[in-house]
Amino acid sequence: MRVIKPTKPTYILCSASVGGNRERRGQIGSLFDITYTDDRFGKKTWEEAEAEIQRLSLSKALEKGGIEPKRLSCMFAGDLLNQCVASVFGLLEYEVPLFGIFGACSTSAEGLILATLALNGGAELCSVTASSHNCSAERQFRFPIEYGSQKTPTAQWTVTGGASFIVGKRKENALAEIKAVCTGRMMDSGITDANNMGAAMAPAAADTYISYFRETGEGPEDFDYIFTGDLGAEGSDLFKLLMAENGYKDIINHLDCGLMIYDPNDEDIKCGGSGCGCSASILSSLILPDIKRGRLNNVLFAATGALMNAASVQQGNTIPGICHLLRISRIGG
Amino acid sequence: MRVIKPTKPTYILCSASVGGNRERRGQIGSLFDITYTDDRFGKKTWEEAEAEIQRLSLSKALEKGGIEPKRLSCMFAGDLLNQCVASVFGLLEYEVPLFGIFGACSTSAEGLILATLALNGGAELCSVTASSHNCSAERQFRFPIEYGSQKTPTAQWTVTGGASFIVGKRKENALAEIKAVCTGRMMDSGITDANNMGAAMAPAAADTYISYFRETGEGPEDFDYIFTGDLGAEGSDLFKLLMAENGYKDIINHLDCGLMIYDPNDEDIKCGGSGCGCSASILSSLILPDIKRGRLNNVLFAATGALMNAASVQQGNTIPGICHLLRISRIGG
Repeated sequence: MRVIKPTKPTYILCSASVGGNRERRGQIGSLFDITYTDDRFGKKTWEEAEAEIQRLSLSKALEKGGIEPKRLSCMFAGDLLNQCVASVFGLLEYEVPLFGIFGACSTSAEGLILATLALNGGAELCSVTASSHNCSAERQFRFPIEYGSQKTPTAQWTVTGGASFIVGKRKENALAEIKAVCTGRMMDSGITDANNMGAAMAPAAADTYISYFRETGEGPEDFDYIFTGDLGAEGSDLFKLLMAENGYKDIINHLDCGLMIYDPNDEDIKCGGSGCGCSASILSSLILPDIKRGRLNNVLFAATGALMNAASVQQGNTIPGICHLLRISRIGG
Repeated sequence: MRVIKPTKPTYILCSASVGGNRERRGQIGSLFDITYTDDRFGKKTWEEAEAEIQRLSLSKALEKGGIEPKRLSCMFAGDLLNQCVASVFGLLEYEVPLFGIFGACSTSAEGLILATLALNGGAELCSVTASSHNCSAERQFRFPIEYGSQKTPTAQWTVTGGASFIVGKRKENALAEIKAVCTGRMMDSGITDANNMGAAMAPAAADTYISYFRETGEGPEDFDYIFTGDLGAEGSDLFKLLMAENGYKDIINHLDCGLMIYDPNDEDIKCGGSGCGCSASILSSLILPDIKRGRLNNVLFAATGALMNAASVQQGNTIPGICHLLRISRIGG
């Protein structure tokens, strides 16, 4: 059984999102809590800038919820940098216990699932933070942006941004309820092209959605929307194809966060946005506020990750995908 | 409150350890479940060798417990490689939901804490796997071993090895009980020398131990031993100094896993062993069997991690430490 339902009601109390300049100019630009026109966020390196995204988003989320950092039982945090250093240096000042996590671009959902399990297992209040930065990611996984390398048609654009969420048991003023989680397993479809992450992740997204629907007896039609994290255009098509092959035909309420974040006329973006910050930003900026104000009642939020590093691709390894899912609902809905 | 006591009895059901050739010749060489004289573990690259350590240790742990992989609710796994690829490729074949974690060398304890919280929060059976490999770690963090670079006196030797643990609720035949956990926060003492990890981690070890003792009212004397993960000689001295400054003087039952794994006459080792595989191997090979057979009743097991990557050190960042702790006891003891 991959679906786990919290034994105690579990809520996302508050959240905050942070975006860079291209994100500010995108479809949800005005919905970010904080944006910077300078992608360095006032820091000297891209890596420090990403750490600053983590720090700012948690600081803002705590402020919005009126929560003192010391009340947090623990923080779950992750990013795409080697050894999760954006999380380390971004969250160092909080002096709160940290669980570093790595789920590639599925980090937001992985963290929210672990926070849910931790709350039901004895913790009182947890934060979840996920970030990515285009320039630190490009330097680390491909080439420094200063080289001006060309992107292939199936490539995606790593989001400069991130978000933090506070998960707790107090219902008053909370944004939404986490009704169930579905854990993700790795799916390897033999993709070796680091510029086609959508195809690497789509089988995992389909696997997790199919598992969730089969275990619960629910279907796509039971939700306002079913979201994926950052499959992009290529991956979204493949996801719907795989769903159709398994009996879930003509899904009309699927939305991919990777296709919701940037200006569709921005040609640099290619197949869509990606990165831990992509699904995290959409969840915090758009989905949770729409649930809070009653525009949405029930959604499935699934974040997808591509599991690789620069050396593993060079050594000829495939790129397995993973996808973690949460059912998020309007309180009392 | 950083100490969390499981609401339901939580047990380490079984475990298995895997070691390389230098580990085979060390103090616990004969206690490993599996050792290889070839540190490539029959694979073509050091990274694949480390993945094989993960695969072998989980396979052996499941075999020892007579547990089918499909019974696992989820796997917690981590390592020192960029984007945790040893965990990814080592555990891919199991087709079980994966939570990637990053806690540097504290991974074994981080995973066991998260497994404990997950079990109490709704999961049924979890595995925890942690690994490291000397050659993949040296290449990634310092220099390829083929360069023959010299080690400084405070350097430690990254363990080629790892272990897996199965955590569940069934008492029969279990090895030991997890009575409490204490979550670790980052402590930054300003260390910037990547060859002095012991000094970077000792303040975090002291912080977690002091928090545990103050919250519970217990002291070092209430345990057979209090373990640290891989402080080494330098870090262990500093740990005891910091404990003494905080009122815990003359601790006589502290043991450091980094000083227990290698032949003390092996001059290459310098200050001791380190890496995720160090504390994991000692826990699986020595501590848990001794608890099971009644030689030990109550121990505190704390694994320590140094949080950095190659670029963060080059960019002048400090190396914060982190330490997660578990109270592990004889069943019925």
